[in-house]
Amino acid sequence: MDEIRIFSPATIANVSCGFDVLGLCLDSVGDEMVVTKSAEKGIRIKQIIGAGLPLAAEKNVAGVAALALTEALDPEYGFEITIYKNIKAGSGIGSSAASAAGAVFAINHLLGSPLSNKELVPFAMQGEKLASGSAHADNVAPALLGGFTLIRSYEPLDIIKIDAPNELYATVIHPQIELKTMDARSVLRENITLKKATIQCGNIAGLISGLYTNDYDLIGRSLHDELVEPVRYILIPKFKEIKAAAMKAGALGGGISGSGPSVFALSRGVETAQKAAQAMAAVLEGTGIPFELHVSPINPTGIKIL
Amino acid sequence: MDEIRIFSPATIANVSCGFDVLGLCLDSVGDEMVVTKSAEKGIRIKQIIGAGLPLAAEKNVAGVAALALTEALDPEYGFEITIYKNIKAGSGIGSSAASAAGAVFAINHLLGSPLSNKELVPFAMQGEKLASGSAHADNVAPALLGGFTLIRSYEPLDIIKIDAPNELYATVIHPQIELKTMDARSVLRENITLKKATIQCGNIAGLISGLYTNDYDLIGRSLHDELVEPVRYILIPKFKEIKAAAMKAGALGGGISGSGPSVFALSRGVETAQKAAQAMAAVLEGTGIPFELHVSPINPTGIKIL
Repeated sequence: MDEIRIFSPATIANVSCGFDVLGLCLDSVGDEMVVTKSAEKGIRIKQIIGAGLPLAAEKNVAGVAALALTEALDPEYGFEITIYKNIKAGSGIGSSAASAAGAVFAINHLLGSPLSNKELVPFAMQGEKLASGSAHADNVAPALLGGFTLIRSYEPLDIIKIDAPNELYATVIHPQIELKTMDARSVLRENITLKKATIQCGNIAGLISGLYTNDYDLIGRSLHDELVEPVRYILIPKFKEIKAAAMKAGALGGGISGSGPSVFALSRGVETAQKAAQAMAAVLEGTGIPFELHVSPINPTGIKIL
Repeated sequence: MDEIRIFSPATIANVSCGFDVLGLCLDSVGDEMVVTKSAEKGIRIKQIIGAGLPLAAEKNVAGVAALALTEALDPEYGFEITIYKNIKAGSGIGSSAASAAGAVFAINHLLGSPLSNKELVPFAMQGEKLASGSAHADNVAPALLGGFTLIRSYEPLDIIKIDAPNELYATVIHPQIELKTMDARSVLRENITLKKATIQCGNIAGLISGLYTNDYDLIGRSLHDELVEPVRYILIPKFKEIKAAAMKAGALGGGISGSGPSVFALSRGVETAQKAAQAMAAVLEGTGIPFELHVSPINPTGIKIL
């Protein structure tokens, strides 16, 4: 095989009580990428359709991830990458992660899959490092593995994939304001109370338990973030109203997607997820803030070959 | 039925990364209690064998829990309680919880079980409040339900039972020094870093995941406590050596049982748990500190009728 076309999905990191350790994979929104073997070694970003991103491989998240992988595997040939960008940069649903994860997935596949998708995570993380300054895994891991992914530990890297209950749907609204990851990080408090940490531990443990037992109510009861949402939500216009509208429409719970500005809700069943979408949209309509809306099942396997 | 004899088990609260939210139920160590209906209303502690504890119902943890339950259920008769105490007070393996949980379990059973074991938890918590000043649930819940119990939230109380993998065994060593729960609480830091909280969240999520998937290695990798053990271990003689000895003997992981001074280890298989016991004992032998040693499977159902 000399060419591969893939769908690389958007992802929701943090997932409320799972700050910096949880992510989930979306199914109905993502980038497409075409990667082709070339006789000449190295990585070339041929074209990026839909976004004004740098083409120089060492300045592009897909390029940097691809370079990290080819440096490790040292293949006989090079790769050309074309990216059809559907996920908006800075949306908070893993735009850079989709590019980085997609690049290493495609190249690994063209090389006969010497590495597992889990083994590709550290290479994709290099793209995240370029994008945000920190080599975080909570978007690239769900993009590569699907379902929910737990980053139990970074040193050493320990990733656990958790299947999502079948009827779980995500709703995402992306208010199109600029919110830099760095700014979203800067509002975080370095110190928190032991009591809040304990509450957070109870909730993430409850969420994990709910995922394994398909207990939608428990998933909903656990979707509370004590640590980050209370200080970060002020950066997102109408956050509280959007979340309240989703809950009123029947969503199980929700929060900030990644470091924002997207807001997500989880629901049981596509109908409720769509009702939540309408309710969330109604809050932003009339504010003059443009937005995008996504309703998606949880993608069970991550990146797909088209 | 006018009389019931029960076995009320010891329990391990906190379970390393599960500070204040997790507990597990032991099987091979516990108290026995005999509870008898009496024509005269009220609660009478007839006798406590094996410990010098107050007999006045309102000053006894079993008595207080029983009074809370009978106040709610308002039965036509009273109850007499005899306690055969095998769990040493102040050991850190739920001595007061066993008495409190046992009392409400027995009375509920004699009344034809109007409440579920989970519904009994808040009444048993009243005994804990008398014992330690705080109505915590992380010992009474596993005593009443068995397995592992997660206290996802206290307000409202939300308890999730998680079955333990079959081959999981606990080893507990109880160095017989005096360590008051209040003193063990006083060393805790009120504030912690967000980074440590995040690491703790990763570990408790990993532990819960390991319990649902019978992944013993993951359980072991997750048994790290960032928040409490690093400041509390100094109160326990030879803690680091005891834990290291258990790990060297093949245990998956371990930590402080409850607020100490008991130290626990979890192992896969009874043989490894016994080897861990020997290794842990070897550390305290020769120090002059007397100790008790327990090796136990995880009790799947909690309190038993004898």
